[in-house]
Amino acid sequence: MKFLSAFFLGNALTNAADRFLPPWQYDGTVWPLPQSMAVTQEFQILDANIQFVLTPESPQCDIIPDIFQRYQDLIRSHFKIASSSSKKLKFSASSAAGIIDTIEVKIINCENYPSQNMNESYTLQVGSPTPEKVELTASAEWGVIHGLESFTQMIHNIDYRPSVNSTMITDWPRFPFRGFLIDTSRHYLPISVIKAQITALSWNKMNILHWHIVDLQSFPYESQVLPELSFLGSYTPLHVYTIHEIKDIIEFARLRGVRVVPEFDTPGHTDAWGPGGGPKFLTPCYRNGEPDGSHGPINPIYQENYDLMRKLFTEVNEVFRDSYLHLGGDEVPFGCWKSNPDITAYMAKNNLTTYAQLEQVWVQGMVDIAHDLKKNYVVWEEVFVNGVKISNETVVEVWKGRSGTWKDTMNAVTKSGHKAILASPWYLNIISYGVDWEGYYVIEPTDFNGTAEQNKLVMGGSAAMWGEFVDGTNILQRIWPRASAVAERLWSDKSVNQPGPARWRLNEWRCKMLARGLPAQPAIQNPNVNPNFGYCPYPFDPFNNAHYLF
Amino acid sequence: MKFLSAFFLGNALTNAADRFLPPWQYDGTVWPLPQSMAVTQEFQILDANIQFVLTPESPQCDIIPDIFQRYQDLIRSHFKIASSSSKKLKFSASSAAGIIDTIEVKIINCENYPSQNMNESYTLQVGSPTPEKVELTASAEWGVIHGLESFTQMIHNIDYRPSVNSTMITDWPRFPFRGFLIDTSRHYLPISVIKAQITALSWNKMNILHWHIVDLQSFPYESQVLPELSFLGSYTPLHVYTIHEIKDIIEFARLRGVRVVPEFDTPGHTDAWGPGGGPKFLTPCYRNGEPDGSHGPINPIYQENYDLMRKLFTEVNEVFRDSYLHLGGDEVPFGCWKSNPDITAYMAKNNLTTYAQLEQVWVQGMVDIAHDLKKNYVVWEEVFVNGVKISNETVVEVWKGRSGTWKDTMNAVTKSGHKAILASPWYLNIISYGVDWEGYYVIEPTDFNGTAEQNKLVMGGSAAMWGEFVDGTNILQRIWPRASAVAERLWSDKSVNQPGPARWRLNEWRCKMLARGLPAQPAIQNPNVNPNFGYCPYPFDPFNNAHYLF
Repeated sequence: MKFLSAFFLGNALTNAADRFLPPWQYDGTVWPLPQSMAVTQEFQILDANIQFVLTPESPQCDIIPDIFQRYQDLIRSHFKIASSSSKKLKFSASSAAGIIDTIEVKIINCENYPSQNMNESYTLQVGSPTPEKVELTASAEWGVIHGLESFTQMIHNIDYRPSVNSTMITDWPRFPFRGFLIDTSRHYLPISVIKAQITALSWNKMNILHWHIVDLQSFPYESQVLPELSFLGSYTPLHVYTIHEIKDIIEFARLRGVRVVPEFDTPGHTDAWGPGGGPKFLTPCYRNGEPDGSHGPINPIYQENYDLMRKLFTEVNEVFRDSYLHLGGDEVPFGCWKSNPDITAYMAKNNLTTYAQLEQVWVQGMVDIAHDLKKNYVVWEEVFVNGVKISNETVVEVWKGRSGTWKDTMNAVTKSGHKAILASPWYLNIISYGVDWEGYYVIEPTDFNGTAEQNKLVMGGSAAMWGEFVDGTNILQRIWPRASAVAERLWSDKSVNQPGPARWRLNEWRCKMLARGLPAQPAIQNPNVNPNFGYCPYPFDPFNNAHYLF
Repeated sequence: MKFLSAFFLGNALTNAADRFLPPWQYDGTVWPLPQSMAVTQEFQILDANIQFVLTPESPQCDIIPDIFQRYQDLIRSHFKIASSSSKKLKFSASSAAGIIDTIEVKIINCENYPSQNMNESYTLQVGSPTPEKVELTASAEWGVIHGLESFTQMIHNIDYRPSVNSTMITDWPRFPFRGFLIDTSRHYLPISVIKAQITALSWNKMNILHWHIVDLQSFPYESQVLPELSFLGSYTPLHVYTIHEIKDIIEFARLRGVRVVPEFDTPGHTDAWGPGGGPKFLTPCYRNGEPDGSHGPINPIYQENYDLMRKLFTEVNEVFRDSYLHLGGDEVPFGCWKSNPDITAYMAKNNLTTYAQLEQVWVQGMVDIAHDLKKNYVVWEEVFVNGVKISNETVVEVWKGRSGTWKDTMNAVTKSGHKAILASPWYLNIISYGVDWEGYYVIEPTDFNGTAEQNKLVMGGSAAMWGEFVDGTNILQRIWPRASAVAERLWSDKSVNQPGPARWRLNEWRCKMLARGLPAQPAIQNPNVNPNFGYCPYPFDPFNNAHYLF
């Protein structure tokens, strides 16, 4: 028995004498790295007609058939690749301990919907004493997804044949909140791309799609109770998401163990709400005592605006069934409020002395609506900093201070007894020349001056790809495999934080995602002529892309 | 008659009252902007079965049928878009001056192969006195391609119907050398992607694919006379270009008026040549008087190495029929040569006192081979700076001094009577956060302290996407529409250099390329809710991409 380690990986690399060895021949690494994974040199060959069976005592969770089908298709795709490779690639002969024809899955109980408390743990046993049968045990269906994902990543070709080394895995996530933000306001994203993103999140064992669905540039959420918001706030009628389409996306995500948490950001970032929100919705800005025609944040002094939000959130609560809703609350500009005499009068009447207090009034209103709807919520850090009364279930998302001052905010949030997630260092939309994932990989969310109790309040983190410069043409390429660095940080043991050994594994994982049809961009720079990394065994052709899982 | 101008464009924008107006409704701008283009408000509707006919006196150039077929397909695709849009998009009614059912093409003579001296000029007449017949006159077939491209870009929907305003265009390129470098060594590029790149170059009226085909990371050129170079120097046998495939690519480019100029860079950047080049090919590096196992540039002291290059270039000369070959010659490191006692002895024996002189010996050998093959050549600036004897037909590619010192080099090269092309400011592989094309757009290749005679020696420029971090997954997205900024700089009049008016036109052009199936990434940042730019009318779905021209 040998524990999977940088040494093992390095060893596999130097052993790759055959320069035509495809990368996943290296060692069938699993990304993100399991909490405990023992691999031996003994291996089994896969039967192309491998069967998936539930143990008799396992409950029949409704998503299991879909999970089995997906992974059966994916395992089959490895046989296509193996046979095509066998035409050109030459391997040395070797002998197997057995042929795997069955994956036996045991589930303790069904949770049916992914949630903040979902149990994602699993154990996986490959090889002796049952070389022909893989044993996967999961607390709930999410562990089945993760276990089959790990197993599939372990497949590598030996002597032309998809094979798996004898392995024992015991695995669970380090953090329960492993999110990724997409922004469908700056640019509209086709549903196929959102689904591909959800699929990739699931492969990387990330469990939350943070859907920043509307913002000042456009309002693509097509409400049935307030249709004018998207009719007047979307780019065109082609650039919207209907409730039917959204429910389809949410179900697609549930089948992959991914939660969909929508964000309706207020009171700032709301210009696109204006045309459909009604004449009183946005604050008219004044210049020299006269309205100048421009508008600012939502006008918090009119009850009608709270009523509109209650109407919208009541619908949103039915559409997005996750127990959490993201209320936004970031970057509220005060200039327009300051210029408006009605707001000044309102503040005087209500003894509000600062505009942060005025912002509190609005956000408090949103929080109250969420409470009435029995919805928990995530808020950007400003809401906490401005002292809005928020429940202990609230998750505060820390996004400022990329340079490192995020540590002070994480400290303050957790010290106050609130749950925190970290986003600041993981704004993947901020690109630069060269390889940058190492910078994301070495970040440690609990690396601030807090107590053990405070660390328990760190729920995890969320990476982001804001939409100013991305749409369906380039978003998946920019996200993957850079986001995989964040995925491993949030899932694997704290000690798994060395970019050195991660490089080869990430390159291998990128090649696997590519073979599955995800256009993940190069992970590392190609060194001098070297057959073992920096390229993938099968050139990715975007115009002839057989995508197995989309 | 109104001349197409920033005013006209701005006007069209502000007139776009209907917020569901698709961008190409603006005005059917042409990118790059023609030398002379007069547009009136009168317009003609297109007949879906528009015919292409040659005038009787025109010669039958062999590529004309392919050109006509491509543009007929492309024009037809506009009817698909118009009808699909008609379902959702509402336009105001309007009346046409006529229906265009014929494009009559007159050609003066056939050139058959694009070359340094290719004549790309054309005139295009749309509207009165012959509203039903478009008249396109071209000196050679290349002008036919450019004229039909311009005409197709002018198509915009009026009242659901593809239409074209009455227009008079007289057009020709400002510079004859409008190139783009791709690098298939750092990462292999699938042939479909190379063809898509060639297609996009043609759309943008760029006329040279600079194919940096081999480098130190891999040697994908599969030679028939020296097969071991790619057998031992490519990543795998799947990562090569056979001579048959290369000839197919060159023909594909010829049909689109694009030259393919290959670069076999020596004596540096050659590590991947080592395994197949033989024991004497690369220079063994010494440490403490002993070979340390590593290798440097090609060893210039052995005649065998010149013989190998002659054998290779003789084949290359037959495969790539363009009269130019790129000999490279950049970034030769001297350290290894310095360490090698055999080289030291050779230099003493031949009275060589500097390593630049030693480099000259090698490059002179390459230049002599090119002369014997009657091939002209392009070289990187170092070859000129080091004083190698080069013919006056030589094109010197200036690539250093992005910050602006390239001006001194352009000055020196042209002062010496040599032809120069500029690449330094246009390394598109160097990405950064946000919009960067304006920086490429404002560069002026003749903006150095030279005489009018020197300016005549500026052949144009070449943009580059080096391959360290791109492959089939992301290269087209990164190149387009950023390279379009360079395309307009090199084709259009010197006065067309204001990013302001170019913004809207580039966004429109990006949307057109997207509708044709090229995954060009967003050109500009989306401003606050505004229907007129920052998005394209039809969301691009990479998983359901009908690419008309690939």
